[in-house]
Amino acid sequence: MQHALSVTRQENFAGWYQAIVDQADLAEESGVRGCMIIRPWGYGVWQRMQELLDRRIRETGHENCYFPIFIPLSFIAKEAEHVEGFAKEMAVVTHHRLKMIDGELQPDPDAKLEEPLIVRPTSETVIGAAFQRWIRSYRDLPLLLNQWANVVRWEMRPRLFLRTAEFLWQEGHTAHATEQEALEETMRILELYRSFAEDALAMPVIAGEKPPHERFPGADSTFSIEAMMQDGKALQAGTSHYLGTHFSHAQNIRYQTEQGDLAYAHTTSWGVSTRLVGGVVMTHGDDDGLRLPPVIAPKQIVIVPILRDKPEDAAVIEYCKALGAELRTLSAFGEPLRVQVDRKAARPIDKRWSWVKRGVPILCEIGGRDVSAGAVSFSRRDRLRKGEKIDTATLSRAEFLRTVASLLTDIQASLHREASERLHASIRTDITTLADLQSYFQTGESEFRGWVSIPWCKPSGDALERVQAQLKAAKLTLRNAPLKQDSVEGKRCIFTGEPATELVLAGRTY
Amino acid sequence: MQHALSVTRQENFAGWYQAIVDQADLAEESGVRGCMIIRPWGYGVWQRMQELLDRRIRETGHENCYFPIFIPLSFIAKEAEHVEGFAKEMAVVTHHRLKMIDGELQPDPDAKLEEPLIVRPTSETVIGAAFQRWIRSYRDLPLLLNQWANVVRWEMRPRLFLRTAEFLWQEGHTAHATEQEALEETMRILELYRSFAEDALAMPVIAGEKPPHERFPGADSTFSIEAMMQDGKALQAGTSHYLGTHFSHAQNIRYQTEQGDLAYAHTTSWGVSTRLVGGVVMTHGDDDGLRLPPVIAPKQIVIVPILRDKPEDAAVIEYCKALGAELRTLSAFGEPLRVQVDRKAARPIDKRWSWVKRGVPILCEIGGRDVSAGAVSFSRRDRLRKGEKIDTATLSRAEFLRTVASLLTDIQASLHREASERLHASIRTDITTLADLQSYFQTGESEFRGWVSIPWCKPSGDALERVQAQLKAAKLTLRNAPLKQDSVEGKRCIFTGEPATELVLAGRTY
Repeated sequence: MQHALSVTRQENFAGWYQAIVDQADLAEESGVRGCMIIRPWGYGVWQRMQELLDRRIRETGHENCYFPIFIPLSFIAKEAEHVEGFAKEMAVVTHHRLKMIDGELQPDPDAKLEEPLIVRPTSETVIGAAFQRWIRSYRDLPLLLNQWANVVRWEMRPRLFLRTAEFLWQEGHTAHATEQEALEETMRILELYRSFAEDALAMPVIAGEKPPHERFPGADSTFSIEAMMQDGKALQAGTSHYLGTHFSHAQNIRYQTEQGDLAYAHTTSWGVSTRLVGGVVMTHGDDDGLRLPPVIAPKQIVIVPILRDKPEDAAVIEYCKALGAELRTLSAFGEPLRVQVDRKAARPIDKRWSWVKRGVPILCEIGGRDVSAGAVSFSRRDRLRKGEKIDTATLSRAEFLRTVASLLTDIQASLHREASERLHASIRTDITTLADLQSYFQTGESEFRGWVSIPWCKPSGDALERVQAQLKAAKLTLRNAPLKQDSVEGKRCIFTGEPATELVLAGRTY
Repeated sequence: MQHALSVTRQENFAGWYQAIVDQADLAEESGVRGCMIIRPWGYGVWQRMQELLDRRIRETGHENCYFPIFIPLSFIAKEAEHVEGFAKEMAVVTHHRLKMIDGELQPDPDAKLEEPLIVRPTSETVIGAAFQRWIRSYRDLPLLLNQWANVVRWEMRPRLFLRTAEFLWQEGHTAHATEQEALEETMRILELYRSFAEDALAMPVIAGEKPPHERFPGADSTFSIEAMMQDGKALQAGTSHYLGTHFSHAQNIRYQTEQGDLAYAHTTSWGVSTRLVGGVVMTHGDDDGLRLPPVIAPKQIVIVPILRDKPEDAAVIEYCKALGAELRTLSAFGEPLRVQVDRKAARPIDKRWSWVKRGVPILCEIGGRDVSAGAVSFSRRDRLRKGEKIDTATLSRAEFLRTVASLLTDIQASLHREASERLHASIRTDITTLADLQSYFQTGESEFRGWVSIPWCKPSGDALERVQAQLKAAKLTLRNAPLKQDSVEGKRCIFTGEPATELVLAGRTY
């Protein structure tokens, strides 16, 4: 069977991913190592995500702000003292001027910075310093901030959206009077991320706590949402950290309590990034390209007039424009429909495939016959084909207008259901020994394996290091211990043989 | 008379500006030279501007995208070859890793970049390179892109919002088949900026063409909107450039015409930045703090419950919450009202002044008496005082709800009217000689002078250089030649004595 993409998921998942990113107008390499250009359709998807998530973040009492792109080296040095496992791959600014020397433009030696500046890999340190200045008394707490920004981490093996040197994200940073309030915040955000992923991205995820060795450096506990890609690998799609008073001690973030004592604030941080766009591709894409959940599709309906360079064309264009205008007066998911009439100078068949690859939920292809009949011919992207053929339906214009909103709702639900069934069918729960786990994953990288839910005792110290070595040998990682889990009564840790304390998910990852 | 700010505009305009930026929670210095922290209320204002402007930019057919923060030095070097007057103050990244050496964290000498990277001062060069790849035929034109991003220009005399090393902005970049289309785009955006400034920011501006020596380096023509601050100085609030085929030649941006020939594309670029926040402060602020036009106010109505630590407090809080909820069901300017009930633990009088300084358009202060009477006591920020006293009105709850939307509309209009009257009353048109111009501006910087509309002949070459020297000596700049202008028939250029060709605005500037 012929598909729109030249590579199928089955043949070469990585190549298929790359083909979608390219052909769905999502992103491309920029020529600067690890930095991507987010192209209009890709940015449109991200902007939708941003709008919807920003609304949720603000509705839960957080305020947006903006901190500088540059962090003085001394701030980073101070953090490095306090935080073990601190990554040092970052972009360092050393000069503030260029100069023409011997006919060549170069950093001006006379403009060397006294203290190098780091392009933020995250804003923990600068925001912590502001917390220290801004927080005086319990009345200033909780302090609930969020920032939308670009950050840079020098990546050795970049991959568009999934792992790039520069990426876009939001980073939340909050300070609280008590451990309990900070933990509640950590979990509130985890749930916010979970529901956002499921409702907006139609991307089912498992929310849970990361094992100790996968925590954010300096965190008391790290929680994540994990999504399963169509190759069975896990994508960490968002994290929420309870930082205890670790950063407060390092940065002296103290407040006067109601009783007049000085106490350290409890802090949290949390973020999601443009990586989510990659997650949507690998969750919903098929061999014909991207399939976008209507909630985050930049355009939910595209109307392609089928023109034949004949006098009738004018009527087709008028019909399409009128249909577009009428659709825009309707709503779905509480927002006006996003509709585009594609009047570019190109062949209708090329337009069809360009929109199919971009994953527009509903594609209307309107020809003279539709105009005469007062009808609308359309296909839905989630069920594009019947057998090998494109499955096109035709409704009267009135009927189409009457049902289109529920059609979009149905597409959103069907994409979620499909991914959710795959996720839940792909978590094995019957593996109880390390040998079985190892042998189950002793296959080629391209073999679909999904995840395994295994009992363990959450060891620490040397025992944990042994577990890490065993996992590494099997090219496996522990994703998280799901919040919702079955009892482990009577079960034994597959690593140590001790009585198990919880179930944790193991799998390959991005 | 006692005011909320400790400095008045009259006494010390620069100090007054700084006081508002600080006390209205807009921004602060970050400790990194020239980089500011945009605090929540300030970011809220910027985010409103961004939402509204983004909508207008997209409605006119532009698509958002995102290009990397880093530009290879070679790109900049190439631009420097083609563009005269090219600024070289930029942040240069030379290393990609830190290393602990002799107990000190430093740029790792082994991680020196082969080619330094520049933190984008603007994205002309990288977007041009993408245009070169993306544009093949006339069918790809016009290409209408916009980007929201942070950019960095090393500023020697930074000032919060007005001139910072890092700032946030949007930069539009477009390519067109013909000069005419590109010029139409340039003017379309100028008009978009003008109407945005007037309608959303209530900030009257003069749209016009910059004189040749004030053009963007490499532009064929540069247009701007200029706003008058309350000290009479001009703030360039937005620019729109027609770049001709200058950048296309430098970057080889060519397309195949319908006839099959290769032709250079005509390009434009245009932008506004966080500088607009500073413009709003200096347009609308008074000696009690900021006054925000309702369209861009993060909160349009704040309700402060006046509590007395008595049992009646519960009823006051309930009343305020219910009022807030009811207000949120209403709309103004086509959007739901943005309302906050301020329940922070602080004295009502302190809350009042904190909201007054932030410039919330309507402040409701609700006490037990309002609750018993079913009334709402409120003040409007644009007319805060009657004599020395705060001018508080009281309406029945029903009447307040019935009229609040038109009250907001009225506040928006009254702020615009006030600024507009000042602008138009402060442009002198009766100065016809250079000597008079010089003597008019031969006063202290703090003396209000406004602008002068002068006839000139738009000289070039040496004649223009002489004009520049004369202006510089008088600490004056030419702002723009307004699009709407009177005839200069019979008038003479005040610099050269030649017959005048147009009127141009002269004034001091930021």
